[in-house]
Order: sequence, then structure tokens, then C-alpha cells
Amino acid sequence: MQVSARQIAALLDGIITGDPEVTISGPSKIEEGLPGTITFLANPKYKEYIYTTRAAVVLVDKTFKPEQTVIPTLIAVENVYSALAILMEKFNSGISIYAGIASTAVVHSSVILDAQVYIDDLVIIKQNVQIGEGTKIYGQVFIGDNVKIGKNVVLHPGVKVYHNCVIGNNCVIHANAVIGSDGFGFARDNDGNYKKIPQTGNVVIEDNVEIGSNTVIDRASMGSTKIMKGVKLDNLIQIAHNVTIGENTAIAAQSGVAGSTQIGANCIIGGQVGIVGHIQIADGAMVQAQSGISASVKSLNAKLYGSPAIEYTNYLKSYAHFRKLPEIVLQLRTIQTQLDKKDQNIS
Amino acid sequence: MQVSARQIAALLDGIITGDPEVTISGPSKIEEGLPGTITFLANPKYKEYIYTTRAAVVLVDKTFKPEQTVIPTLIAVENVYSALAILMEKFNSGISIYAGIASTAVVHSSVILDAQVYIDDLVIIKQNVQIGEGTKIYGQVFIGDNVKIGKNVVLHPGVKVYHNCVIGNNCVIHANAVIGSDGFGFARDNDGNYKKIPQTGNVVIEDNVEIGSNTVIDRASMGSTKIMKGVKLDNLIQIAHNVTIGENTAIAAQSGVAGSTQIGANCIIGGQVGIVGHIQIADGAMVQAQSGISASVKSLNAKLYGSPAIEYTNYLKSYAHFRKLPEIVLQLRTIQTQLDKKDQNIS
Amino acid sequence: MQVSARQIAALLDGIITGDPEVTISGPSKIEEGLPGTITFLANPKYKEYIYTTRAAVVLVDKTFKPEQTVIPTLIAVENVYSALAILMEKFNSGISIYAGIASTAVVHSSVILDAQVYIDDLVIIKQNVQIGEGTKIYGQVFIGDNVKIGKNVVLHPGVKVYHNCVIGNNCVIHANAVIGSDGFGFARDNDGNYKKIPQTGNVVIEDNVEIGSNTVIDRASMGSTKIMKGVKLDNLIQIAHNVTIGENTAIAAQSGVAGSTQIGANCIIGGQVGIVGHIQIADGAMVQAQSGISASVKSLNAKLYGSPAIEYTNYLKSYAHFRKLPEIVLQLRTIQTQLDKKDQNIS
Repeated sequence: MQVSARQIAALLDGIITGDPEVTISGPSKIEEGLPGTITFLANPKYKEYIYTTRAAVVLVDKTFKPEQTVIPTLIAVENVYSALAILMEKFNSGISIYAGIASTAVVHSSVILDAQVYIDDLVIIKQNVQIGEGTKIYGQVFIGDNVKIGKNVVLHPGVKVYHNCVIGNNCVIHANAVIGSDGFGFARDNDGNYKKIPQTGNVVIEDNVEIGSNTVIDRASMGSTKIMKGVKLDNLIQIAHNVTIGENTAIAAQSGVAGSTQIGANCIIGGQVGIVGHIQIADGAMVQAQSGISASVKSLNAKLYGSPAIEYTNYLKSYAHFRKLPEIVLQLRTIQTQLDKKDQNIS
Repeated sequence: MQVSARQIAALLDGIITGDPEVTISGPSKIEEGLPGTITFLANPKYKEYIYTTRAAVVLVDKTFKPEQTVIPTLIAVENVYSALAILMEKFNSGISIYAGIASTAVVHSSVILDAQVYIDDLVIIKQNVQIGEGTKIYGQVFIGDNVKIGKNVVLHPGVKVYHNCVIGNNCVIHANAVIGSDGFGFARDNDGNYKKIPQTGNVVIEDNVEIGSNTVIDRASMGSTKIMKGVKLDNLIQIAHNVTIGENTAIAAQSGVAGSTQIGANCIIGGQVGIVGHIQIADGAMVQAQSGISASVKSLNAKLYGSPAIEYTNYLKSYAHFRKLPEIVLQLRTIQTQLDKKDQNIS
Repeated sequence: MQVSARQIAALLDGIITGDPEVTISGPSKIEEGLPGTITFLANPKYKEYIYTTRAAVVLVDKTFKPEQTVIPTLIAVENVYSALAILMEKFNSGISIYAGIASTAVVHSSVILDAQVYIDDLVIIKQNVQIGEGTKIYGQVFIGDNVKIGKNVVLHPGVKVYHNCVIGNNCVIHANAVIGSDGFGFARDNDGNYKKIPQTGNVVIEDNVEIGSNTVIDRASMGSTKIMKGVKLDNLIQIAHNVTIGENTAIAAQSGVAGSTQIGANCIIGGQVGIVGHIQIADGAMVQAQSGISASVKSLNAKLYGSPAIEYTNYLKSYAHFRKLPEIVLQLRTIQTQLDKKDQNIS
């Protein structure tokens, strides 16, 4: 596929600087910048590359002003990432389009499949499951009794969904993720042995949710663990029983949320963050990677860092002093000596 | 199912306050408190809800004394969680009961299956495996050569058990957990390349152990990685080669234990904790979430926090001062100025 | 198998102290030291055991000098771990040798298999996949379109490899690891909803790489996520899109590397480490467990600790003072009091 800068600018509603007739055949990264490709500048850290890249076309933000001569054709857009998303769909590598129900899949006779559902080889679908139009279930997925799955969902290979869970429309769940396993609930008896508390609830995932590989979302002890509209969860995340994650909240890899905690909408939570159980986090919180949230966060749009987490800037200030603690202690000793000397002089 | 408060109290050996004839049809959470349901108050944080819940019956601890009027019928019991566990079994949602050996399972002719074993579709069981009475193996599980599995075990979909491992009675292993993969053992040769050290041991899991989804337990390099009676491991945990976890120890999600470490009995280890290799942790340790244990813990019932972890209360005290470091440094400067001024006055 | 100390010393080019005719039948750990076995002393922490072990033979470093009488025969070698690796291959438990293509595997007609490839039951291999000589693919693995796999690779049960990925020779990938799932890339539109940025690149794994159970390596948004020669990744690790891991770098369990970061060669990274995106880490870095790397590391062989990480020794010094913060603050108060008193005396 050969496309001209002019055609791309038309597609993206962008403004061209440079040769509009240059053509490209695919994308590349700005630091690799292969000839005959289009690339993009979104992160200012990569700014220097725009002056050396051999790419033919670069997508830039409309506020970008070059400080030196730029060789490729520039297309200035409102939002580089959004433009890129539209563009990439055009280039998306044409992997095979799969359709139909594989003969090696084990699908119970009670299952209701809407039109254009794809069931790959060696999938297991148990009793009374419902699957919406256009949904694709890849190899070796397991879907337990009574599960409901919406339209245009993609379950990648090896995903396991326990009984009674509900998945909305347009969700994507990546390989080997587990939805609906038992919450970690045990009662200790008088002999100190743990007795399992049955986990009788489910997981409800609303529309437009994406869940990463090997992430685990446990079913509620009663009621539902809830992942609301538009939530994005990265890989290897732990969501415990009875948690609620609010709309359009994004959580990076390896973070964990303990039981019954409610996270608000539009939060951005970094990687390897831990959040204790039974708390509420207000909308719009931004949590720095590796932080530990140990108490409810009541103010909107809080910025947090540290373990236990405190206000982001305050953590940075304290940590700057932490790094200088040896000097601080030395200074303290000097003062003590000065003071002791004075006492001697006086006495 | 309709059950009266009187019937429930009889079942749980509880004492009724309020109408014993009110009936309920299922459970709900105290903060949702649906009419016609039973709920419970175990965590004091939720105390306020007991005065507003619309639930018909609430299980409470026998020490609970209401501070206002309570509308639902109360049933006071010795241990709310234990009572709840018994009760929930009554309500446990009737999912299909599976039995028999699925025709799509690939079971080697040398495998010994006791009575009432259930093997679901697309399971693989290799040579010389033994499986005890009443055990259930769900879809897409893999069991390697010579594995021994006890009675009444449940292996959820996608669990992988490598060769020679041993699993006791009444264990539950959740979806996509891996038991017995190679320990992380390499020797560096003179060229700086790593050469694999064969991992020839196995994993031994004793009775009544529960293991969460996507948790990994590596086989020993020699001998056995040991998970002792009654241990409860949450999701996404890493147990390295040659580790021993003592009886009735519980570990929360995303924690990791490095090679050859021995953890005592009855420990409670929070989420995202890291424990270095080649150390011993005495019985009864409680480790706060996100802590890092870098040395052996010799005293019983230690309470630990921080990375590297120190005594729990000491960590909290130090951290309280850490938060005030900017003020502390300011105070130090003020003192220095005062002192310098004095020096000038004197000279 | 019975082998004499003399035979072992010949195999390992070692020097014998003690009876060369004593025979052993297998390995054991030094602290368990079963009679009739060979064990080894590599970690000085275990030195005391050499004086009490009942093992017949102990491998030691050629620099080892006993401080008391040693009963077993010693074999002194250049590198204990390397010697052990060679030796363990001799003892490696003879599990079944599998060969051929299982009839339950679903292998597309376009797939090219070299000689001596083993495909276990219930494996799925999609279109245009190429697999090199001697490679073994265990049960329930999924391999997407156009994947290329080299010679003598082992894919353990449940591994999922997405389309277009490349795996070199002599690699080992453990159970339920995921290679090539979508990177975590979304653009926020004007309504605050995330729109997926297609992830059109792949993962390239070079020769001699080992990857642990449940580890996830995401495909690049464009170009390749690269795992270079000889890299060793432990279990439950997250490698984000467009990351490069340099030759012979080893990373311990549960660590995560965010998008587009480049890690140099010969680094050793502890467990539960987090590394932010878009940075470079120079060759030879050693990173202490649970550290957080938040900025590029430019100097070679850096030693790092803390979150955010600083120079290893500096972190330890600061942390030693952190532990004493209550005393430091007390001292500060005493000084303030002394000073205030003086002021009163003077005035």
C-alpha cells in the first residue's frame, strides 16, 4: 500500500508542512525512522530525532515548532495519539480472518451463539452460556456455566472465565487472563486452621474494557466484582473479590487491589502499585508506580506517591532529604559539638 | 429457598434478637442490604450500616452491642466468619455437577484413577499419574509424568503440573497456576554466558492447601519445594525453588519468596511482599504489604514492615518523621543560624 | 547409578581430598546431606554444614580451606555451579522422551516442521508457522500466524505465542507464559474515553533465552520488542511494548519493565523491581530487589537500590539513618531546648 502525505492529511484532518506528494508504505518508530515510512512525535523526549529521522512523513502536534531544518514532510494534528490510532488501523497487518465454529471446540448444546461468532479450536464452553454477535473466542479458552458475553468481544488464547460471570460489549481480554476465580476468603477456626468461605458472587465487566495477559479478577464473595465501562487493565494485575473499578480508570502492569476497595472513575494508576482492602479512592486520582495506598482518598484528582502513599510533591521533597540523611546527621553532630564547646567555655 | 431466622440460628448455634420468624432467600453485602436477605457484620468499619441496612437478618459477633435501634433480626454467634462459611454452603449457587471422564481428554493408559474422579474436556494426563477419589480436574489442565494427586482435589481450568510433583488431599488450585516449573538456576561460564543448572527436584503440596490463579511454584533443584498443610496462597505469587512454606501460613497476592527460604507456620504475609533467598522466618510472623524481608527473622510472632523490613511500629514511627523531613531540615537550619549569630555576638 | 568420587573428579577436572573410591547414587542438598549422595558448597552461608553433613562427597571451590575435620570426600573445582550443572545432567531424572506429532494437535497444513519436532496433544499451530529441528512443543500451547521458532526450543504446556513473533534457537519458555500480546497503548479522546492504538509490531527473542512461567512479553506498537541472546527471565515478569533487554541480562521474578526502555547487556536485576518507560540502562547494572528505576542509568556497572533508586551504598546509609529518625528528632529537640535555655540565661 502506497499512500501520499496529502491523503493522510485528509484522513486525519491535518496540516501539511513540506512535500504533500511524498508516499509511504507503512509505519516506523521515530528513532528507527526507515525511509518510505511515516512516524510520529508525541513524547517531547524524542524531539531530537525529528531532525535526523529518515522517515518520509512525521505526525506532530499542532503546537510543534521546529528549532532546526526538518527534512520529512510534517502533518500537524490536534492529538497525535488519536491520529495515530486512526492511521494504524489502515496499516494493521492483515493476519488471517477466522470465522465459524472449530470442530475441535467443545460447546455444550445449551449454548446460545449470535451471528458471526468465531470459536477457535479446543475451546470449552459450558452450559447456558450466551455469546453476542461478532465475538471471537481463540484457542484453549474456557468459559464456565451461565457466562454472558456481549458483542464484538475478543478472548485471546487460554483465557479462563469461571461460571456466572458477565462480560460486556467490545471487550478485549488477553491470553491466560483469569476472570472469576475464587476470592481469597478464609475463616480461621479454633484450631488455627483456615476454613474456606464460599465465594458465591461473580465478576461483571462492562463495555469497552481491555484486560491484559495473565491478569486475575476474582469473583465476589457475594454480589459482584465490578469493572466499569472503558477501564483498561495491563498485564499481571490482581483485582480481589468485591472490588469496583470506576469508568475509564487505567491501571498499569503488576498492580494489585485488595478486597472490597472501590476505585473511582478516570484514575491513572502506575505499575506495581498496591491498594489495601475496604477503602474508597475518589475520581481522577493519579498514583505513581510502586506506591502503596493504605487509606481512603477523599479529594478529587489526588496525586499520590510512596508507601504508604502521601501527596506526590511532598513525597519527592521528603525523599530528597532522605537521600541527604547522612549529611543531615553530620550537621546535627557538628551543632551538638559547637554547643557542648560553648557550655565548656561558659562553665 | 426460604429459611427463617430461627432455622439459621439453630444451624449456627446462634442467639436471636428480634423476630425469629422473618425469612430470607439468600445473602447480600451489608452495605447493599437487599430486603429478604441475610447479611453479616464482621469488620467494625461497616458498623454504621447495621442501622440502615434493609436486610432481614444480620449475623453479628456475640460481643456486639447496638448503639442505636436495629431493625433487622440479629443472630449473635461465636465467630461470624466461621458461621458465614457454614451458611454460604447452603446458598452456594447450584452450578452443574460434573462427573466422568470426557472423551476429548487425553489420558495415558498407565494412569491410575480412583473412584469418582472427574476429568473434564481437553485435559492431558501423562504416564504413571495417580489421582485420588473424588478429585475434579477441569478443562485444559496438564499433568506431567509420575504426578501424584490426592483425594477431593480441585484443579481449575488451565492449571499446569510438571512431572514428579505431589499434591495432597483436599487441595484447590485455581486457573492457570503452574506447579513444578524449573527453578531459576544458572551458572555463569568464563565467557559470561549462563549455563542452565538442571532442576531435578519436585514440588510437594500437602493436604488442605489452596493456591490462587496464575501463581507459580518452581520445582527444587534437588529435593522438594514444600507447601505444608493448610497453606493458603493468593493469586500471582512466586514461590522459588527449594522454598518451604510452613503449616497454615497465608500469603496475599503478588508476593514472592526467593530460593531456599524457609517460612514458618501460621505466618500472615501481606500482598506484594518480597522475601530474599536462603533465610528462615520463624513461626507466626506478620508482614505488612509491600515489605521486603532481607534477613532471617528469629523471634516468634514478629511484626514487620518496610523494605528492608524492620519492626512494624518502628517503621511507622520512622515513616512519620520521613514525612516531616522538610520541617526537620528547616528546624536544623534555624538552629544553625541561631548558633552562628551567637558566635558573632560573642566574638 | 553408582559413581565413584574418582570418576566424578575426572569428569569435572577436580582435585580430590579424601577417599576417591567412595560411591554415590545421586545428589542432595548440603543441609540435608543424605548418606551415599554428593552435595556442594557454593554459598559461604552454608559453610558450617560441611562439618556435619552425612553426604559422601562434597563439591567445593578450589579456594576452600576447611577449618575443622571434614568427613566426606571433597572435590575441589574451578567453579562449583558450573561443575554442578555438568554433574546434574548425569542425574537428571529420566522422564519419558516424547516424539512425533500428536493426533489431537491442530496444526495448519501450511506449517513447516523440520526434522525431529515434537508436537504434544492439544497444541494449536496456525498458518505459515515455521518450527526448527529438535524443537518440543508441549500440551495446550498456542502458536499464532506466521510465528518462526528456531532449533531445539522447548515450549512448556500452555505457552501462548501471538502472530508474527520470532523465537531463536535453544530457547526454553515455561508454562503459561505469553509472548506477543498487545502493548498497553491507548489514546484518550475528547470525551475522556480511551481509544486503542493498534499494536502492529512483534516480539523477537534471540538464541539461548529462558523465560519463566506466567511471564508476559508484549509485542511492539511498531517494530519489535527485543529479548537478546542469553537473556534469562524468571517467572511473572512484565516486559512492555518496544522494550529491549540486552545480551546475558538476568531478571528475577515479578519485575516489570515499562514501554520503550532499553536495558543493556550483563545486567542483574533483582525481584519485584520496576523500571519506568523510555529510559536507557547501561551495561552491567546490578539492581537490588524491589527497587524502582525512574531515570536513565548512564554509568557502566552501576549498583542501585531504593525507589526511586540511588547508588546502592548511599541507599543503605540513608536507610540506616531512616531507622534512627525518632532518635535524630529527639536529639534535635534537645539541642533546641539547650539553645532556648542559653537565650534565657543571656537575656
